Amino acid sequence: MKKYHIAVVGATGAVGEELLRVLERRSFASASLRPIGSARSAGKSIRFRDDSIAVEGLTERSFDKIDIAFFSAGSETSRRWVPVARAAGTIVIDNSSVFRMEPEVPLVIPEINGDDVRAHRGLIANPNCTTAVALMAIYPLHRIFGVRRVFAASYQAVSGSGARAIEELREQVESALRDRRSTPRVYPHPIAFNVLPHVDIFLEDGYTKEEMKMQNEGRKIMHSPEFRASVTCVRVPVYRAHSVAISAEFERKVSVEQAREALAEAPGLELIDEPQKNRYPTPLNVAGKDNCQVGRVRLDCAFENGLSFWVSGDQLLKGAALNAVQIAELL
Amino acid sequence: MKKYHIAVVGATGAVGEELLRVLERRSFASASLRPIGSARSAGKSIRFRDDSIAVEGLTERSFDKIDIAFFSAGSETSRRWVPVARAAGTIVIDNSSVFRMEPEVPLVIPEINGDDVRAHRGLIANPNCTTAVALMAIYPLHRIFGVRRVFAASYQAVSGSGARAIEELREQVESALRDRRSTPRVYPHPIAFNVLPHVDIFLEDGYTKEEMKMQNEGRKIMHSPEFRASVTCVRVPVYRAHSVAISAEFERKVSVEQAREALAEAPGLELIDEPQKNRYPTPLNVAGKDNCQVGRVRLDCAFENGLSFWVSGDQLLKGAALNAVQIAELL
Repeated sequence: MKKYHIAVVGATGAVGEELLRVLERRSFASASLRPIGSARSAGKSIRFRDDSIAVEGLTERSFDKIDIAFFSAGSETSRRWVPVARAAGTIVIDNSSVFRMEPEVPLVIPEINGDDVRAHRGLIANPNCTTAVALMAIYPLHRIFGVRRVFAASYQAVSGSGARAIEELREQVESALRDRRSTPRVYPHPIAFNVLPHVDIFLEDGYTKEEMKMQNEGRKIMHSPEFRASVTCVRVPVYRAHSVAISAEFERKVSVEQAREALAEAPGLELIDEPQKNRYPTPLNVAGKDNCQVGRVRLDCAFENGLSFWVSGDQLLKGAALNAVQIAELL
Repeated sequence: MKKYHIAVVGATGAVGEELLRVLERRSFASASLRPIGSARSAGKSIRFRDDSIAVEGLTERSFDKIDIAFFSAGSETSRRWVPVARAAGTIVIDNSSVFRMEPEVPLVIPEINGDDVRAHRGLIANPNCTTAVALMAIYPLHRIFGVRRVFAASYQAVSGSGARAIEELREQVESALRDRRSTPRVYPHPIAFNVLPHVDIFLEDGYTKEEMKMQNEGRKIMHSPEFRASVTCVRVPVYRAHSVAISAEFERKVSVEQAREALAEAPGLELIDEPQKNRYPTPLNVAGKDNCQVGRVRLDCAFENGLSFWVSGDQLLKGAALNAVQIAELL
């Protein structure tokens, strides 16, 4: 079996660290691993399998002899260095939003459009985390009923904003318990005991960039150019795992029974839907798990052919690291 | 000016205490105040204006010579004791859900259907807190565009579940910071660093009772029998103030400019909508304020004639105590 030389750009970040753990856990066929970090990470080392490996900075030679590079260091790094990696003959799996909507770049959730990987030209994009978690539940329903549009509101964990945001929530909670104030740095307002209808930057039309990703990326991933999604993205004081409340309208007549069956059988998804026994997905329960969880499935009372449901998923795993490694496995 | 003899049933609860403060703050024309509590509150006293008043238990004589009684002690107490108060000639303003949908009982938000109070027969119902906060923003838009249906997801504070839930969140946060576990008592799952798609009991059709209130009560309050609302109600680790993400479809062509104007002029509502300056409503900012706040107003991208917006409001005030006192003022 061929083994691959791997680079992880952003190896010390929240997603990068998950990536290393996912590669280990899934016994990915790696011959070597090169962790790459920002100037801030210089001198650090990471643990991979039984080794401690020094983190390197990015140089023009970083991708020499590298077969596959995972990029998870933000948009600026991807914009600057993905072309360098591709020029070196490395296949890039990029977690940033920079290349996702470029027509020749496959944007892939393996359980949905794994076949799209085949058309790659050295670069495959990983979808937005909230979009990925939502589509894991929308797509199995789309296959049987044909999705037309969705209304969604998200409950997004602070780890989506990186390690500094996790620290900020912890500090603010600690300060609040001691009746002290602490000044927000990562978010424009306190996140402890608060919710913020603000994820990513605001666009001219009043939506945020994050909110439009579900429609834009959803169309590409599901091959549904007419798909519409109106989304409100909200940051909540949860450390890990995103949740999304969804109302979806379909072309064909829906049934809750058929929907539950399709969701229960869908790969990468677990149906937890016994509300009378207080069983439904929560971020605390899904955190650290590969599978997304869906529940609260019901006939939507404001659509003719509609379903409402609730999905939670670990956005560092299915929304990022796990999905990226699954893409690499398809190669 | 006539002064009224007032009773507050549930005077030591979260809403009851707010009620006393609202009566003071608005200099309500009270001749006397009788605080009534459960057996648990026996021996306690409350502060009202410059007096300390002993809390009484409920008896058949509790409402003798009382002009107006505010009930805020849960459904069972209302079911049992509201008839007693009415029989004594007392006008009841009831915060429970027991009588809200009875045709001869006015269900009133003074800014929307204050005139409905006139038809009362000794009992006026106060609406559900999430419904009240949402309608404060929906109704001004309904007046100009005609609302057809809404999709909404809520972010509800723990104080909506009473004082014990506030304590539970505080304890769980403290325990989590110390890496200790604490057993949930009020909620079926931990609420600290978590969100729960579960408010009130589950109905046969998969919605919760709370989720259906926006449609049922909205129809009655707005006099719109065709109004449809598909809602997901979610408890979040916020102490005080509910928020709701709303997508609304209208009969007539909408414009964001007209919508903003109508919302800015609406009584009891404040428009905070400068997202580029990070100005939008948050529960932490609206807590303790009488006015609800609305922002993130934008053309909805999945409706032809739709608007998306975000509203936050202190559910103990506009969602309960303030609204009840406003009803009393209409009398």
